[in-house]
Amino acid sequence: MYSFKNDYSEGAHLNILKLMVETNLEQNTGYGEDKYTEVAIKVLKEKIQKTDIDIHLIPGGTQTNLIAISSFLRPYEAVISANTGHILVHETGAIEATGHKVISVDVHDGKLNINHIKDVLESHTDEHMVKPKLVYISNPTEVGSIYKKDELEKISKYCKENDLIFYMDGARLGSALCSKENDLTLFDIANLLDSFYIGGTKNGALLGEALVICNESLKKYFRFNIKQKGALMAKGRVLGIQFYELFRENLYFELAEHANKMADLFNKEIKMLGFEFLTNSPSNQVFPILPNRIIEKLQEDYQFYIWEKIDSENSAIRLVTSWATEEVRVKEFIERLKELV
Amino acid sequence: MYSFKNDYSEGAHLNILKLMVETNLEQNTGYGEDKYTEVAIKVLKEKIQKTDIDIHLIPGGTQTNLIAISSFLRPYEAVISANTGHILVHETGAIEATGHKVISVDVHDGKLNINHIKDVLESHTDEHMVKPKLVYISNPTEVGSIYKKDELEKISKYCKENDLIFYMDGARLGSALCSKENDLTLFDIANLLDSFYIGGTKNGALLGEALVICNESLKKYFRFNIKQKGALMAKGRVLGIQFYELFRENLYFELAEHANKMADLFNKEIKMLGFEFLTNSPSNQVFPILPNRIIEKLQEDYQFYIWEKIDSENSAIRLVTSWATEEVRVKEFIERLKELV
Amino acid sequence: MYSFKNDYSEGAHLNILKLMVETNLEQNTGYGEDKYTEVAIKVLKEKIQKTDIDIHLIPGGTQTNLIAISSFLRPYEAVISANTGHILVHETGAIEATGHKVISVDVHDGKLNINHIKDVLESHTDEHMVKPKLVYISNPTEVGSIYKKDELEKISKYCKENDLIFYMDGARLGSALCSKENDLTLFDIANLLDSFYIGGTKNGALLGEALVICNESLKKYFRFNIKQKGALMAKGRVLGIQFYELFRENLYFELAEHANKMADLFNKEIKMLGFEFLTNSPSNQVFPILPNRIIEKLQEDYQFYIWEKIDSENSAIRLVTSWATEEVRVKEFIERLKELV
Amino acid sequence: MYSFKNDYSEGAHLNILKLMVETNLEQNTGYGEDKYTEVAIKVLKEKIQKTDIDIHLIPGGTQTNLIAISSFLRPYEAVISANTGHILVHETGAIEATGHKVISVDVHDGKLNINHIKDVLESHTDEHMVKPKLVYISNPTEVGSIYKKDELEKISKYCKENDLIFYMDGARLGSALCSKENDLTLFDIANLLDSFYIGGTKNGALLGEALVICNESLKKYFRFNIKQKGALMAKGRVLGIQFYELFRENLYFELAEHANKMADLFNKEIKMLGFEFLTNSPSNQVFPILPNRIIEKLQEDYQFYIWEKIDSENSAIRLVTSWATEEVRVKEFIERLKELV
Repeated sequence: MYSFKNDYSEGAHLNILKLMVETNLEQNTGYGEDKYTEVAIKVLKEKIQKTDIDIHLIPGGTQTNLIAISSFLRPYEAVISANTGHILVHETGAIEATGHKVISVDVHDGKLNINHIKDVLESHTDEHMVKPKLVYISNPTEVGSIYKKDELEKISKYCKENDLIFYMDGARLGSALCSKENDLTLFDIANLLDSFYIGGTKNGALLGEALVICNESLKKYFRFNIKQKGALMAKGRVLGIQFYELFRENLYFELAEHANKMADLFNKEIKMLGFEFLTNSPSNQVFPILPNRIIEKLQEDYQFYIWEKIDSENSAIRLVTSWATEEVRVKEFIERLKELV
Repeated sequence: MYSFKNDYSEGAHLNILKLMVETNLEQNTGYGEDKYTEVAIKVLKEKIQKTDIDIHLIPGGTQTNLIAISSFLRPYEAVISANTGHILVHETGAIEATGHKVISVDVHDGKLNINHIKDVLESHTDEHMVKPKLVYISNPTEVGSIYKKDELEKISKYCKENDLIFYMDGARLGSALCSKENDLTLFDIANLLDSFYIGGTKNGALLGEALVICNESLKKYFRFNIKQKGALMAKGRVLGIQFYELFRENLYFELAEHANKMADLFNKEIKMLGFEFLTNSPSNQVFPILPNRIIEKLQEDYQFYIWEKIDSENSAIRLVTSWATEEVRVKEFIERLKELV
Repeated sequence: MYSFKNDYSEGAHLNILKLMVETNLEQNTGYGEDKYTEVAIKVLKEKIQKTDIDIHLIPGGTQTNLIAISSFLRPYEAVISANTGHILVHETGAIEATGHKVISVDVHDGKLNINHIKDVLESHTDEHMVKPKLVYISNPTEVGSIYKKDELEKISKYCKENDLIFYMDGARLGSALCSKENDLTLFDIANLLDSFYIGGTKNGALLGEALVICNESLKKYFRFNIKQKGALMAKGRVLGIQFYELFRENLYFELAEHANKMADLFNKEIKMLGFEFLTNSPSNQVFPILPNRIIEKLQEDYQFYIWEKIDSENSAIRLVTSWATEEVRVKEFIERLKELV
Repeated sequence: MYSFKNDYSEGAHLNILKLMVETNLEQNTGYGEDKYTEVAIKVLKEKIQKTDIDIHLIPGGTQTNLIAISSFLRPYEAVISANTGHILVHETGAIEATGHKVISVDVHDGKLNINHIKDVLESHTDEHMVKPKLVYISNPTEVGSIYKKDELEKISKYCKENDLIFYMDGARLGSALCSKENDLTLFDIANLLDSFYIGGTKNGALLGEALVICNESLKKYFRFNIKQKGALMAKGRVLGIQFYELFRENLYFELAEHANKMADLFNKEIKMLGFEFLTNSPSNQVFPILPNRIIEKLQEDYQFYIWEKIDSENSAIRLVTSWATEEVRVKEFIERLKELV
């Protein structure tokens, strides 16, 4: 059964494994002080076009979020997140486990704006409440939408004016940046955000996220936090090799483009069949609304999540594409859908 | 410069990488529910010869320790550790960061015995002090010594009588089990300990430790803890493939035997030159005491840690061997040492 | 300016201070092992009519909540609370600071029911989410409503069936129990809840809450938690004397009755003037909706909180009465209001 | 049986209770914003002779330590303490429960010096270890010794040079300052320390400690920390009234002087009988070494702790005096001892 359940069903892009095999018996310093991590950070900085940033390679996304956020905040400070935020819903209270409340804001498209943030600040007035301090967004969001440059600029300005930290979860950042609707560069993001991460796991790596810290005041002694939370890999080369391979040329973006192209195919063809979508998603997750009886039939041949019940007869499903998604499988799925309509 | 600094300088054993490449494009369920994790756990249980145990594959050692210990303890409960314990010294307060005190016991050979534990219990008398609850040992210890079966039996019995949890850090467990002085089996360990882990990172894997939970009362909902601490890998296959390959036949033990053989060579030859050792180490770390002037010369060609100053003229160094250590390099080192004597 | 802002504006009931002065120079054992704490617990158990419960006297409400909840939960377990819950809104993230998420449920009258709880359980399906484990209610709620016996019975039954801990914040429990609409006894509460506290601070004590633990499995080693969180008072007599005096006869209930009587006066008279109320509150907090211009005038002579904006012209205010509220002041307030209408 | 077990056996000095009774029915703002807290802080600042300090009144000592320390540190930072430190031994891991390791230093007289601190810094070299950041001392120490001005000056200078926070637990600070050997003033302490607290509970208050924050960078938003840890008393007046009464004139120092005078009597008379002492204690705790058979006899009439076994025949006992200790009881004790010699 072919899976459109997520973007981490396969292993890594073959180039990555190849480099891993080639360099396997070289001796390297441990704990992220190897030469591959060094060159990975170098090529990442070149792609971001900034030198005054710190980059740390961390095994996973939940880990990256919890290490960064717990490191950035004082004990009484809290996070503001859209109600769809990954840290709020799908990380088993990882942020709270480090002592910090995550304040949920109801949004319709996965995206925060400054009015949302303003409302939170205005309702948190004194020391009997937590102090909202860090604005957490995901780009793309958990429902596939992406932020435009002017949206980030507004939030960034508001954060600076209100002494807030602006942080982006980029588990699928490749897909956002390669979206047809995108007008952001890594350089923009590094200028607008205090910190963000570039996800590897969901875009062709075996594991690994590159956390970028742009705000000088958040950089100091950061490796202590990584080690304390158990995320300083003895064989840091495993992360270094992967990010080096992904960013030394344009592999990272090529992989994301493929994923998006496959999602576009879903979007376009399913729309042509007259179905609605739960959200406008220009990234690698699409959320078509289909009749339950069709969904049941599709499930005989394909794996995917039923995302949300719409009414008694229809549900939104989630189809996720990746660097490894085979075009022929997408087309087969669409053919099958056509038969079922 | 050849390194005897540690046992994670190289990548993974080639068989592991080969299997990773071969299975790379297969689609697998995420988060440790893939078929490789399933078979890895199956072969691990066969090697341990027990079925009533839970096994979880976790990316790293510090992570494994902090997840297990924070999961096992109530907020006021504390850990008892030898003063050389890895969690006490080299994990950046990871256990304390989860809220638990680690009580240090001064020992001379890295090993705890029941008198040490008894002293701690007797000095913790009421609710103004933490409640010692978990006995943490490493096997082999951080100074290379190993536990014999009767030693573990005594501690295990004492722990049961005193309602203590007995936990073993097995970062280098392969080396202990393959030591010439060892009389323990995995089966023994699983019967005597409440929980322990079998280290992969330091014995041929890219990353990964297999946490074994033997005590029924500690098993429940354990995956929530792994996820909350950020250690539930999306591509759990990465861990599954490795442990499957290491344990489907005897690769894990063959690799450890090689490491030990290399360490024995160091032990034997350096002893023949008339040097003393800091500890009796029958595992893959040896601690010869050498004149500082010789150490300086050796450092021109080899990387290793200076472990401890002995007196104004002599220091103990640490030489670590691994599955990847080349015999010719060990011999070269010894030749060089002979020249310097 | 007279204050109806809260129920902790004055000191303690004079009988309490008198007993404190009388016994002042007696020598007593520290840390809650004094004879007054002993007899306080004795009379509390008599009033609750149960002996198989543990009672701990703790200085404050936030402290009681955080000690109890952090003691009862495993790291991945979370709390379910109404969106008005004190722990959710007004305790500066105290529960999250101990590592636990508080899940907010939107309710209209401050009260949880089993449908709310069921929804939370159904949406928390696996280890990627926290595990809802403790149901937190306040009685009376933060908006003055109270729970009836059959409501608690339903929740209690549901909690038992679903292995949930049922906990009640009783900061103003006296007022709930003495409400005209109440049909609960302390005995009922102790049978239906796993744990609850009887608030002293807001009903005539200088400080102090009596935490009652009914569920056997939650009792063990509880004093360790109190000490660790800094709440084991050296001069525990201060708490013991107060609860003894409040419960040796019926002072606690007499004080609450007075507070309620004053609130009833507000309720009745303001209703007669034709104003609506934000909530039906049969306890010592009332929430009349008044025109803003009248509120402004009242603020010249009285302190109270503006609770919620209703529309551009009207707001709900909160008037809190206590054991110390002078009837003549309530009547003066009402006269003033009549003039302003 | 008369108790010399500790300095919190009695209630509060009568003047305090009198002021509490007198002001009992005044309405006051809650949560430390009442007028008594305001004037208490005013008179405290006058006694300290500094205005650029923040003062917070907190119910208890363990609480004060845990709130201050957890507020001052980043997650990976640790505390340095003498092995006798109260936070290390007698606070049930309260500091660790907030996530921070307490590093123990073996000392003989309860006192840290810069060599101790230097050793700790030198052995904590990288991100695999915690970062020592806060130096915790108690004055007087837990074994009755006190710090002299030049000792604090040296530590203070060293801390500034090494970017360390210097914090003093002053649970019995009154006794230290009124000791015959003391050459420190509150002004000195506020200049040399980053933060310290002036203990009320052990010197005549019912409860309460005054935390002084001298270092500007540690002051911000501190009340959030107090509230989050459950230590912001609703009836803050209880703390305000007490510290006002203790410091508006010289009551605090008069009480401490009485306690010291009683301890001196013990010291002098017991010395004259030829007995040795465990430590030189010029404060309100004395530690005479007595034959076990005499101790047993004394225990028939007096309560005190047996502090430490010296040899098979002798033990050190701890005698604590306080503001409430009756001179006649001390003399009776000495007479009894003379009879037993």
